[in-house]
Amino acid sequence: MVKESKRTLEFVKYQGIGNDFIMVNNLDFSEPIITAAEAVRLCDRHLGIGGDGVIFVMRDGEDYQMRIYNSDGSEPEMCGNGIRCFAKYLADLEQASAPRSYKVLTLAGHMILELREDGQVCVDMGPPILEAPQIPTKLAPQGEVVKAPLDVDGKTWLMTCVSMGNPHAITFGQEGGEGLNVDALPLEQIGPLFEHHEVFPARTNTEFVEVFSRNHLKMRVWERGAGATQACGTGACAVVVAAVKEGRAERRCTVDLPGGPLEIEWRESDNHIYMTGPAKRVFQGTVVLEN
Amino acid sequence: MVKESKRTLEFVKYQGIGNDFIMVNNLDFSEPIITAAEAVRLCDRHLGIGGDGVIFVMRDGEDYQMRIYNSDGSEPEMCGNGIRCFAKYLADLEQASAPRSYKVLTLAGHMILELREDGQVCVDMGPPILEAPQIPTKLAPQGEVVKAPLDVDGKTWLMTCVSMGNPHAITFGQEGGEGLNVDALPLEQIGPLFEHHEVFPARTNTEFVEVFSRNHLKMRVWERGAGATQACGTGACAVVVAAVKEGRAERRCTVDLPGGPLEIEWRESDNHIYMTGPAKRVFQGTVVLEN
Repeated sequence: MVKESKRTLEFVKYQGIGNDFIMVNNLDFSEPIITAAEAVRLCDRHLGIGGDGVIFVMRDGEDYQMRIYNSDGSEPEMCGNGIRCFAKYLADLEQASAPRSYKVLTLAGHMILELREDGQVCVDMGPPILEAPQIPTKLAPQGEVVKAPLDVDGKTWLMTCVSMGNPHAITFGQEGGEGLNVDALPLEQIGPLFEHHEVFPARTNTEFVEVFSRNHLKMRVWERGAGATQACGTGACAVVVAAVKEGRAERRCTVDLPGGPLEIEWRESDNHIYMTGPAKRVFQGTVVLEN
Repeated sequence: MVKESKRTLEFVKYQGIGNDFIMVNNLDFSEPIITAAEAVRLCDRHLGIGGDGVIFVMRDGEDYQMRIYNSDGSEPEMCGNGIRCFAKYLADLEQASAPRSYKVLTLAGHMILELREDGQVCVDMGPPILEAPQIPTKLAPQGEVVKAPLDVDGKTWLMTCVSMGNPHAITFGQEGGEGLNVDALPLEQIGPLFEHHEVFPARTNTEFVEVFSRNHLKMRVWERGAGATQACGTGACAVVVAAVKEGRAERRCTVDLPGGPLEIEWRESDNHIYMTGPAKRVFQGTVVLEN
């Protein structure tokens, strides 16, 4: 009878506009050193460390690889707020000073991260997808969906649809209505009606947007499967694409999310979207893993 | 121009049936080493460490003193789940082995904590208060309130009222109705109707109880100001007093709360209530305080 010795895990906690992650130094191993079930327990905000996910820093030749377990144990392809935390954690590990650039392999492919001198991180999020069947939405049989009318909750909303690898439906208001006051929207009530509407066969993330100026927007998001959240990096990117398509904003905008602002640029030269925002080390710790 | 050096804080995180606390070694200082405002930031579950409160371990002569800041910055007199964590943290600090007894000064007076050999902590919660005006409730002008009818949400509920220093209204069901299935109750809907009912001038915590046997109860709680929570130590004590008063249970009961079970004894010899339950070290860490 051998009593198993307790395994301990060292970690550092980071957050980016309210999206928070347990970062694990996994450089010496080719697979995550904890299981998805252990990640679920560690993400519990009362019984564990608490977090939206666990991110593993791994090697990819001379470069790095990012793996994530979400708090529900699923493994997403990518996470816009998480990868900014990844860049800051790498710089801390390497004791590198900004500016610094990293090439990081994710399940969504290679991403380029730029750690800027002001401490912000810029991520190339790739090009948006605008073809209706690829988003997917049934609001049009093919082509782009811009200001398409959709009846929800007894009103006709005007929707523009964008995929950033995940589906987004963006609205600036109702047909014949005024601009939105997003703070006043009953998100918990109307969010699910968009998410589960029949015109979105894979369900959808929904963004409600208020326009302050041609380069300053404010959004609230109802995330598919997660509800009202503090921050959605891909959502902020999709919002700027929609604002440009509707002629409401320039290609460079500040987007205010409940957790804080992101700078989004939909660059004309390469059609890619660049997301710039903060990521912050919060605390470091050691936890005993339960067997 | 002197740039202020960054202050760091070492802490250990503990939880007791889902109620979680940031424990701080404050033995060398007579006042908490962080402010209430800093505690609020540290308790933020996305931007800080996350917790229901920060607990300071301080000296009181040869004994100890407990101070708490809640996550909203308020300072409660006592906390039944927090003080169990306090006992475990003291034993860890002293590297003491169970059984061990501690006398701890709180803002509610001196408390006696027993750390048992099985790792559970027993707390003397003092005597219940049963006089209607002292609870306070208007369900009777004076004397005890046992099975008093109260109209809420179009139904007549039978209420027993108990104070453990804070007011509790306990119900086992409706007039002429069957025993409760507490999992099926729409707590978010009916809880506020009890909390703000005119017969509770200081508002009330409300416990809905299902009786499994004469020494096994199950409760769900709607906490005054906090809503549906995982655990309420004083609530579990009040529930056993109410069950004894209504002739439904013995003086020693296991009370199942959403976060786990507590053992409650309303001791006949001294009229005190003894609460026994777990407390667990989760992780330790270091955080940089923002100035």
